[in-house]
Amino acid sequence: MGRITQRKRITRILREADNAPARPHQDGVTSRSKVDVLAVEEPLEVRLSGEAFTVTMRTPGNDFELVAGFLVAEGMLGTSEELRGMRYCAGADEFGNQTYNVIDCDLDPHAVRASISEKRNVLTTSACGICGTTSIDAVEKTLPPAPSAGPQLSISAETLLQLPETLRDHQQIFDKTGGVHAAGLFDSEGHLMCLREDVGRHNAVDKVIGWALMADRLPLTGTVLQVSGRASFELVQKAALAGIEMLSAVGAPSSLAVDLAERAGLTLIGFSRGKSANVYTHDHRLEGGLELVPQDTFRVE
Amino acid sequence: MGRITQRKRITRILREADNAPARPHQDGVTSRSKVDVLAVEEPLEVRLSGEAFTVTMRTPGNDFELVAGFLVAEGMLGTSEELRGMRYCAGADEFGNQTYNVIDCDLDPHAVRASISEKRNVLTTSACGICGTTSIDAVEKTLPPAPSAGPQLSISAETLLQLPETLRDHQQIFDKTGGVHAAGLFDSEGHLMCLREDVGRHNAVDKVIGWALMADRLPLTGTVLQVSGRASFELVQKAALAGIEMLSAVGAPSSLAVDLAERAGLTLIGFSRGKSANVYTHDHRLEGGLELVPQDTFRVE
Repeated sequence: MGRITQRKRITRILREADNAPARPHQDGVTSRSKVDVLAVEEPLEVRLSGEAFTVTMRTPGNDFELVAGFLVAEGMLGTSEELRGMRYCAGADEFGNQTYNVIDCDLDPHAVRASISEKRNVLTTSACGICGTTSIDAVEKTLPPAPSAGPQLSISAETLLQLPETLRDHQQIFDKTGGVHAAGLFDSEGHLMCLREDVGRHNAVDKVIGWALMADRLPLTGTVLQVSGRASFELVQKAALAGIEMLSAVGAPSSLAVDLAERAGLTLIGFSRGKSANVYTHDHRLEGGLELVPQDTFRVE
Repeated sequence: MGRITQRKRITRILREADNAPARPHQDGVTSRSKVDVLAVEEPLEVRLSGEAFTVTMRTPGNDFELVAGFLVAEGMLGTSEELRGMRYCAGADEFGNQTYNVIDCDLDPHAVRASISEKRNVLTTSACGICGTTSIDAVEKTLPPAPSAGPQLSISAETLLQLPETLRDHQQIFDKTGGVHAAGLFDSEGHLMCLREDVGRHNAVDKVIGWALMADRLPLTGTVLQVSGRASFELVQKAALAGIEMLSAVGAPSSLAVDLAERAGLTLIGFSRGKSANVYTHDHRLEGGLELVPQDTFRVE
């Protein structure tokens, strides 16, 4: 875990004295020196056939998955065959060490490259600022067709409520730093299929989706994605593009996240806190006895 | 507050029955229908003299401040004189209503516009992926010179520890939605100068800095910025560019945030939780009796 966490000596201030040796301070505040563990954040540059494409700040680790998942979310990759290869480019820090902060991707030109410029335009204008509806319309063009004959997710409320705790139990970097987000992919029985952590909420999700692409598991029909933070528009977009049927967030969803989830057919859960959760859209995937509010009453009031 | 929050009927699931009428459910889980309040998230397109520049997802409100602060953070604006004007462009939704989601800025061409392409290159390459050091070097070129004769911040640990609670007490949108971030600017006595909320952490900070630009208060020497979330590289970058002397976060800082704060001369506080806080860099701004660890022992171990 060398580059995932980093130790640093800091000064800790406390309102009351604790067990460690400390100096008395004004107003009952004491301070002491201690070593803290930080979550590492470093830039990653993504190149397509040698051309600079994007840069993201991320926690190192599962970088190939991160890039693959990001390209899926951009609508540029759908299957592992379209991804011919990835490699770290040469790049050295001041001490001559390889930095592993630049990745070059080789995509199948016939399947994907022809549409890159078009896709990028779609993405550049997908939040074109005219209004939220226009933005959502543009995104929907890149959404995969709804799964027809494939398995459909059905999950019990009890299983759903347990996902945040399971996610938390498996977060290794968070345990050390208290400073990273997590995304975990679960099946309908609540079994953890893949968990990834990152300082960025979006990156954690990209890593999970990239894992799925590289394992030939896309689209992710029949799965729930549990995330540690809020549910923004972009997370719903990423989940829907990967074919995930349910996105469950510990935090709040935004209005646009709910709008998109409704239109994309995704079940969106927010404020999932162990004892309770809010179902914002498409509650038919919760099995057994849920109060089924007719769709036409799901409207902004 | 019409467009800042939005109401929606949802299904709430609970492990135990509560006071409201509910239907018994399997495993002791009940469900009921209720109305929830969402934080609104909408795209905002920024244009410079009519040309598209960027799009950000944001909570509507204080849009001019958001744009001004964003341009300060991009290194393109330093004083209110350089900002000649801003206006909402025409743009209508499907019902013909103005969306207020496109803003055109008129910047002083002599002071700023000539350097835009250069600045953008700096920013495009500021996280160029070669390594974190290169990235930080590029950012430092755009940092303002350290304040020389101006007022220097000195704040008591007791005052610092109270900032998160003061911030929370003044968050109006969070009270309704539980789903937005906040950034609050404080003086050395802990008096709140400006508070802004947004679904995006970065936007809340941009709005505060934009407020300062438009009020001719830049650089923000002598102030502390308290934020509700984590301290990432980009937040440190924005704070330093605005001349803020101390950034205090309720959450964790990343490694790169600490690196940049150290080099930029910014005091970085993390995990500020009322009873305690961690001082990661430049603790000399905390007055009275703090254990002063010599700078050369502040190193990654």
